[in-house]
Amino acid sequence: MENTVFDIRINNLKKRIAAHEDIYDILIFKEEDIFYLSGFFGKYSNSVLLLTENKNYLFVNFIYIEDAKNSVKTKDIEIILYDQDKNELMREILKSNNVDKILIQSDCISYSNYIKMEKEFKKAKIKSISIENPVEILRAVKDESEQELIRNACKLTDRSFELVCDIRYKDFLKYSELELSIEIEKFLISFGGKGRSFDYVVANNSNSSKPHYSSENLKITKGLLLMDYGVVFGNYCSDITRTIFIGKKLHAELKKIYEIVKEAQQISVDYCKEGIMASELDSIARKFIISKGYGANFGHSLGHGVGIEIHEPPWINSKNDEILKKGMVVTIEPGIYVEGLGGVRIEDMVIVGEKGCENLYSSTREIIRIN
Amino acid sequence: MENTVFDIRINNLKKRIAAHEDIYDILIFKEEDIFYLSGFFGKYSNSVLLLTENKNYLFVNFIYIEDAKNSVKTKDIEIILYDQDKNELMREILKSNNVDKILIQSDCISYSNYIKMEKEFKKAKIKSISIENPVEILRAVKDESEQELIRNACKLTDRSFELVCDIRYKDFLKYSELELSIEIEKFLISFGGKGRSFDYVVANNSNSSKPHYSSENLKITKGLLLMDYGVVFGNYCSDITRTIFIGKKLHAELKKIYEIVKEAQQISVDYCKEGIMASELDSIARKFIISKGYGANFGHSLGHGVGIEIHEPPWINSKNDEILKKGMVVTIEPGIYVEGLGGVRIEDMVIVGEKGCENLYSSTREIIRIN
Repeated sequence: MENTVFDIRINNLKKRIAAHEDIYDILIFKEEDIFYLSGFFGKYSNSVLLLTENKNYLFVNFIYIEDAKNSVKTKDIEIILYDQDKNELMREILKSNNVDKILIQSDCISYSNYIKMEKEFKKAKIKSISIENPVEILRAVKDESEQELIRNACKLTDRSFELVCDIRYKDFLKYSELELSIEIEKFLISFGGKGRSFDYVVANNSNSSKPHYSSENLKITKGLLLMDYGVVFGNYCSDITRTIFIGKKLHAELKKIYEIVKEAQQISVDYCKEGIMASELDSIARKFIISKGYGANFGHSLGHGVGIEIHEPPWINSKNDEILKKGMVVTIEPGIYVEGLGGVRIEDMVIVGEKGCENLYSSTREIIRIN
Repeated sequence: MENTVFDIRINNLKKRIAAHEDIYDILIFKEEDIFYLSGFFGKYSNSVLLLTENKNYLFVNFIYIEDAKNSVKTKDIEIILYDQDKNELMREILKSNNVDKILIQSDCISYSNYIKMEKEFKKAKIKSISIENPVEILRAVKDESEQELIRNACKLTDRSFELVCDIRYKDFLKYSELELSIEIEKFLISFGGKGRSFDYVVANNSNSSKPHYSSENLKITKGLLLMDYGVVFGNYCSDITRTIFIGKKLHAELKKIYEIVKEAQQISVDYCKEGIMASELDSIARKFIISKGYGANFGHSLGHGVGIEIHEPPWINSKNDEILKKGMVVTIEPGIYVEGLGGVRIEDMVIVGEKGCENLYSSTREIIRIN
C-alpha cells in the first residue's frame, strides 16, 4: 500500500501535537476523526484510534471488525479486536510501546469513562493528559478531494430541490410533513446519495417558527413551507434550507420577512472570504436584520462548518473570532422567526476562497410560489 | 396543571438520589432522560435539566425554546433561555437556591465540559459530585403507558414486514439496499410512525455478515437479505430483524445456519422471565450456538433494552448479572455470521413478565422465500 491521504493526515496530527505538547501519543474517540485519519467510519461503534510515535492501533469490536479490515486505508494501523473492556488492553499496548504520557481526546469521552481510563493507565504509571479537539483544526480546512465530494453532495441537493419545485400544487397538499421529508430523501438516494445528513426539518406555517422543528404526520396546508435538508455523499454532508409559499395568497409580513432574509443572506455570501473573522461575517447579517426591526427574531448563529459532520467548526457566530481560511466550507443561513406566524430561513453552503466564496448551490433564492 | 407522570418520575429520582447520596440537587444532560422527566425532547439541543430540593429548571437555547414551552408537562419546571455559555447562569441559580453540593450526570457530559463546569461552580464554593446513569435504572422498567407505546410501535413494524413480504420477486430485484430501506420507512410513516428508530441495516448476501452493515446503493440480487429496522412512535422505539431468501436456490449452509439461529432465538424467548439474570439469558442462546459449532460466529451480545432509546439498559450480554424485572423491554437477537458468505439474525422484542415474556411481534420466524 502506498502512502495515502490518511498517512499524511496522521503525520500532520502527530506533528501538531508534538509541537504543542511534546508528545506523539494520543487516543482519539470521535468516530468522524477516526474516519478522517484512517478511512474507517464506525458509527456508534465505540472504536478507538491510538497513535503512538512508532505504531498506530485501531480498537474495534466484533460487530465492526470486518468493516474495519476492509476500510482502513493506511498500512500503519494495526487493527485490534476487543471484547467488552478495552482499557486494560490499551494499557498493555501503551506499556509495550514504552509510553509514559498519553494525550486523551477529552471533548468526546464522558467524564466517567475518562476517570476509569485514567485509573487503569495509572496502574502502569502512564500519565493521562486531556486534549480538546485535536483534529478539528485540521478538518476545518478541506482539501481538494474533500471539496469535490462536498460539491457533489450539493449538486445532488440542488437536483432534489428542482424535483420538489416540480411537485404540483394539488400533490403538495397530499403529503404530510414527514411524507415530503421521506420523498426528498428518496430523490437523493435515487441520485446516488447515501441518505439524509440529519433529521430533516419540513415545517409548515406556524411550525416553521421553531428553527429545529421535528416534522410530524401533519398534512401540508396552504401557506409557508420551510425545508431544511441534506444528503451524505462519500461520507461528506450537504445542508440546504429553502422556504417556499404554497397557494395563491402571500401573507404580507411573511413576504416582507422573506425579502429581508434573502438580502441578509446575499450580503453575507458576498462578504465571505479568507481573512475575515467568523464573528464579522455573523454581524453582517445580524446588523442588517436588526436594522429592519427583526433582531430579536434571529436568535441563532449565522452558520457552521460542514464536512464529515453536518455541524462542525468553524462556528459562524457573534463570539467566534477565528479567521476564516481558504478551503473552509460553511453554511450561511440567517432566519427570522415569529411565534404563531412562521419562520423564513435561506441557507447556502460556500467554500471560502481568497477573494470571495464559491456558492455550492444554484437553487434559486427568489420567492417560489406553488399554486 | 395536575400532577403528571413526569412529576412522579422527578420525585422518584429525587428520592433515589437522596437515599444514595443524601443530596436532592442534580444536573441531567442526557436528552432522553430529560424527556423522561419533563416531556421535552430536544435532540442535539444541549439542554440541561436542573433539579433542586425546591425548584427545577430547564436550560434551553433560542432554537428549542418554543418547543420546550409547549412540551414541558409539569408545573414544577421553570424554563430558562440561555445564550452561549450556561455554566455561569447555572452557578447563579444554584447559589440562589443555597445549593453547596451538586450531583452531575457524568456519563453524558464530556470530560472537558465537566472540568469547565466544576471550575465555574467552585467560584461559588459549590462542590461538584459525579454520578453515573442516575435515571437509567428508573427507565429500564416501563410503566403501562410506555409499554402501550412500544406495543404500538411493534404493531406498525409487523405491518411493515407484511408489506415487505408482499413485494414480488421481480420488484425486489429493482431495489437497491438503500431504496428498500427508505421504502420500509415510508410504510412506517404512512401507518403513523415518526420515522426510523436508527439507521437501517438492509444487507444483501455477503454484506449481511457485518452485523451493523451500513446499507449501500447496491441493487439487491438473489440470495440472502437481512433487514434490521424499526420505527419511533410516541417517542418510543421498535427494533426487529428478519432474514429472508430471494430466488429459487437455498444455500445449504445458510439454511442450516438459519435453523440454528431460529432455534437459539426461540429457546431464549421461552426462557425469558422475571428473576433470571441477563447473563443467563445470553448464555442460553450462546451455549446452543456453540453446541452447533458456530460459537465464534456469534460475536455480539444477545440483546439490549429498548425504549426512548433504541439501545438502552438492560444489556443482555455474558457479563451482566443484573436480574430481569417485570416490565423491562428487551430484544432477543442471536445471529451467526460467516465472512464472505453472509449472516442470519432473527430479532424480536419482548416485555418481561412474571411467568414468561410477551413477544411483541407476530411476524413469522420461519424461512421466507421470495421467488
